[in-house]
Amino acid sequence: MAEYARLLRVALGEEPADLVIRNVNLLNVVTRDVYPVTIGICEDTIAYVTTLDDQRVFSTQTIDGTGMWAAPGLIDSHMHVESTHATPEYFASAVVPHGVTTVAQDPHEMANVLGVEGVTYMRDAGIGLPLRILTFVSTCVPAVPGLETSGAVFEEGEVAGLLKDKDTLGLAEVMDYWGVIRQSPRISKIVQEGIRSGKIITGHIRGLGGRELNTYLAAGVDSDHEVLSPEGILYRSRLGMTVEICCSHHRDNIPQAVESWKQRGHLENVVFVTDDVPPHELILEGHLDRGVRRAIQLGMSPVDAVRAATYAPARRLRRYDLGQIAPGKIADILLISDIDHFTIDQVIVAGRVAARQGVMLENPIAQVPVPVASQNSVHLPPLTAQDFALNAPGSSVTANILTQRGRGNLVQKEFAVSAGEVVWDSAPALALASVWHRHGLNSNHSFVLLAGTGLHEGALATTYAHDSHNLVVLGRSAEDMAVAARALIACGGGYATARDGKITALVELPVAGILAEEPVTVLGPKFAAFIAAAQELGVSENPIGLLTSLPLPVVPNYRPTDLGLVDVNAQTLIPAFVFQK
Amino acid sequence: MAEYARLLRVALGEEPADLVIRNVNLLNVVTRDVYPVTIGICEDTIAYVTTLDDQRVFSTQTIDGTGMWAAPGLIDSHMHVESTHATPEYFASAVVPHGVTTVAQDPHEMANVLGVEGVTYMRDAGIGLPLRILTFVSTCVPAVPGLETSGAVFEEGEVAGLLKDKDTLGLAEVMDYWGVIRQSPRISKIVQEGIRSGKIITGHIRGLGGRELNTYLAAGVDSDHEVLSPEGILYRSRLGMTVEICCSHHRDNIPQAVESWKQRGHLENVVFVTDDVPPHELILEGHLDRGVRRAIQLGMSPVDAVRAATYAPARRLRRYDLGQIAPGKIADILLISDIDHFTIDQVIVAGRVAARQGVMLENPIAQVPVPVASQNSVHLPPLTAQDFALNAPGSSVTANILTQRGRGNLVQKEFAVSAGEVVWDSAPALALASVWHRHGLNSNHSFVLLAGTGLHEGALATTYAHDSHNLVVLGRSAEDMAVAARALIACGGGYATARDGKITALVELPVAGILAEEPVTVLGPKFAAFIAAAQELGVSENPIGLLTSLPLPVVPNYRPTDLGLVDVNAQTLIPAFVFQK
Repeated sequence: MAEYARLLRVALGEEPADLVIRNVNLLNVVTRDVYPVTIGICEDTIAYVTTLDDQRVFSTQTIDGTGMWAAPGLIDSHMHVESTHATPEYFASAVVPHGVTTVAQDPHEMANVLGVEGVTYMRDAGIGLPLRILTFVSTCVPAVPGLETSGAVFEEGEVAGLLKDKDTLGLAEVMDYWGVIRQSPRISKIVQEGIRSGKIITGHIRGLGGRELNTYLAAGVDSDHEVLSPEGILYRSRLGMTVEICCSHHRDNIPQAVESWKQRGHLENVVFVTDDVPPHELILEGHLDRGVRRAIQLGMSPVDAVRAATYAPARRLRRYDLGQIAPGKIADILLISDIDHFTIDQVIVAGRVAARQGVMLENPIAQVPVPVASQNSVHLPPLTAQDFALNAPGSSVTANILTQRGRGNLVQKEFAVSAGEVVWDSAPALALASVWHRHGLNSNHSFVLLAGTGLHEGALATTYAHDSHNLVVLGRSAEDMAVAARALIACGGGYATARDGKITALVELPVAGILAEEPVTVLGPKFAAFIAAAQELGVSENPIGLLTSLPLPVVPNYRPTDLGLVDVNAQTLIPAFVFQK
Repeated sequence: MAEYARLLRVALGEEPADLVIRNVNLLNVVTRDVYPVTIGICEDTIAYVTTLDDQRVFSTQTIDGTGMWAAPGLIDSHMHVESTHATPEYFASAVVPHGVTTVAQDPHEMANVLGVEGVTYMRDAGIGLPLRILTFVSTCVPAVPGLETSGAVFEEGEVAGLLKDKDTLGLAEVMDYWGVIRQSPRISKIVQEGIRSGKIITGHIRGLGGRELNTYLAAGVDSDHEVLSPEGILYRSRLGMTVEICCSHHRDNIPQAVESWKQRGHLENVVFVTDDVPPHELILEGHLDRGVRRAIQLGMSPVDAVRAATYAPARRLRRYDLGQIAPGKIADILLISDIDHFTIDQVIVAGRVAARQGVMLENPIAQVPVPVASQNSVHLPPLTAQDFALNAPGSSVTANILTQRGRGNLVQKEFAVSAGEVVWDSAPALALASVWHRHGLNSNHSFVLLAGTGLHEGALATTYAHDSHNLVVLGRSAEDMAVAARALIACGGGYATARDGKITALVELPVAGILAEEPVTVLGPKFAAFIAAAQELGVSENPIGLLTSLPLPVVPNYRPTDLGLVDVNAQTLIPAFVFQK
């Protein structure tokens, strides 16, 4: 905070401000109106917001705001920074030009690989940047214990320890909602640690309503970002929830939010969040600014769209010093040159101009050393084609095939066995998925057949697969699957495609198999190349979404993990193959 | 909080609720709509809010809510409980039937008399009642040091100590706003202790705007209850303030709030508060319910009127467990039989029916022993008529007479001196006011002449006079002034009137000269009798307001304290009398 005595003298007009923005149209996100003001800043704090004819405006630096709008800096109250695959420092350089000045992260990808050390690295690397990175304590590490094997497990002890850190915000998305409702001991204890801490407890539900949702709320969890309709927004708001509207390219619920806004005229406790933003999307479409821009384009008033990405999340995060341009608040301010297109001209973070016309001024930012353990996190031997052979103990096999883009439903199909191997690759619509525990705790791996992926040749693989981040390999050929897997094992993780025995695309993510110490502008094209290579192999949906959400056992209906095939709704393992002797 | 495992089982419908309210019209203060629901309660917590056709509703006790409305319990975020002159236990019995379930008190009257012990007594007496009394830390004890002498002085040490108590909410109204703006060391240090604590810092300003108000906000104070117009509400809201709308009978800003609501369609961060409610007003007109009722009668939608007295103050107090009827929230619920008249049928506090049709069920509440020091707090000898003689060292005197109902302006008038005394009582429109330090620290007393009070004979006196609670005596006759003063000195404080040498009304307030261990229903008629007696003496305005606000040196323009006549705007002492030799 600014030096107190000086701040007051600047506010009173006895001393010049460090920065004045003159004659700018203030988007007042509390009173929801727009009017011209002059803003005086002392160090990192707004000293005054005054009328244009105020004679007591002095400054060492002045920005003429004529014809521009001033909005508070954008606040993303739910994001996994790891989804950009950049370390926090490079992440900051990428998002600040998009007007994002505060991000509340859930570092649960790093937590699943490295445990507490993963969380503390992400927290520490977020300190001192020209971006305010706040940290929730990951709760579901892994998402559902017993149904997958991650690199680390959080019990209530790990969570309580991290909650004691005064800078942590509370519990990150409690995804094991069935565990909460049915009172499974581990997650119940974790949620009760959250209650004891008095901090925020955030949620994640999918398709939950009625008394089950009431129970989740009674348990103390009170937000959700899996809302898919205006009715869902109203329903959750009525029950006292904070409704998080995902606004990334691959997960865009802004239309539903705008529809709800049109129906009700005002959205209380509705916040825009990004959740996950892959690097190529960040480059092409932006970050949280994308949500604001899209809401305005769909007809929401600019001040209300901005409110949902500033004041509303600030209140949610209980940060009364953020989210509004008013005296005493932290000077995170966007200058907008075109309000209809939400074109951001300048980004002021804590009183300093950090980005101008999309360009970060302080770049590159000094790096924080990554944990040693993260540098060699893929604990697997070089896999061979034989490791991807679907061995069969019997004469024939009935497989539970995942259909509807791979995960929605099961169909049963019988396959012949030849020379001890299931002959599945003669069915051209199928692909083999294999999930390998990669954290060195055991040698678990599993197989399941997928229909409807579009893959017709080659293989693709990643070490970034929610939430345990085991090695996921999808392929038509055991040889190519081994090639893709070996490439990732060799480089410490990332994404790869292979065809005809050769790597066709490779994104190296050596930090925990998740992050790279590279700018998002470098990562983005690499991801685009990976996607193009996967599409060349025939993948008909987003190959990143296909791979990374495949083993997530909290998204209905069926998911393969390193332990086998999970019935998500029943939260049990079921056989992927039934062999006939 | 309810036992966790059981709460969840009740929420899920696996176990009967302790109390169900069936088929009631829910006033949803978040989504601002009204619709029928059934509410299930487990111990002190709302377990579920469900649709009427939910088959999983079981309970050991059911209230049929048909034809009624359910609202959250009312929350008063700024009140001096002492203004009712009842100890907290009797206060609770008086306000719960009016639908008030939470009060955030500033015990600064007791603090001015007894110091930290006064605050801790009020805090402790507020624990365990069927009313949630929360406590702010008084900041201006006295209001303006150097201009008055109270019984105790709070420096930053006292305030910091009380802030460390995890149950205190933050800083109570920082009335010394000029001290804040001009950076007087004492109040600056106190406000900075508030900032360090991370707690709420509440304000009190009168007639402040522009850069001075900006400075007050930059200093960290962000609320005000001295707002007198719709424009003032908008102005403060735009600057990020919480606007507290006083809604008592003697201080009714509800019309301005309703006008603002009509202009803007919604009020964000606007809360109804009572500030002060004397006992006779509480009996006749109610407490915070008066504000809601009046707002509805003036045309505000019931759900928005209720919101301003429930959800809005809960958010202000950062109490996320209060202010809304939703699963997981504390079960403070009002059942309203007539929404247009806001007729409260039943009051449920923490899951238990505490009052029904205006009658407290648990009555009287067990009392907390009052501090020993409070029982003998009027440290003055029996005063005589000679003590109220206006002695003059010269031959004539020019007096600064307070006009405009006693306090607004000064006029100068010359008086003759006879036998060493100023001959002032021949001017029938004048009254003599005398303020006596009564806390035993010195023998300060002062005199000033008032015009326009209407008093034509006798005297009235009190030991409850903001904020130092010195003895204030107002009279036409030195003899009657002495009689009234002696009566209060003898009984430990209160209110008295005297005429022709005899007491005509006496309200005994033996606890610190401020409170009585009596029900408000007993105190109310005594206050009414005091008012009637004062009016018989000719007092033309509210005699309680006249006496109690007379020495408050933060209300413009001129106020007498025990030290003499204060120019409030200049914050200096000026002579009440100029003697000519």
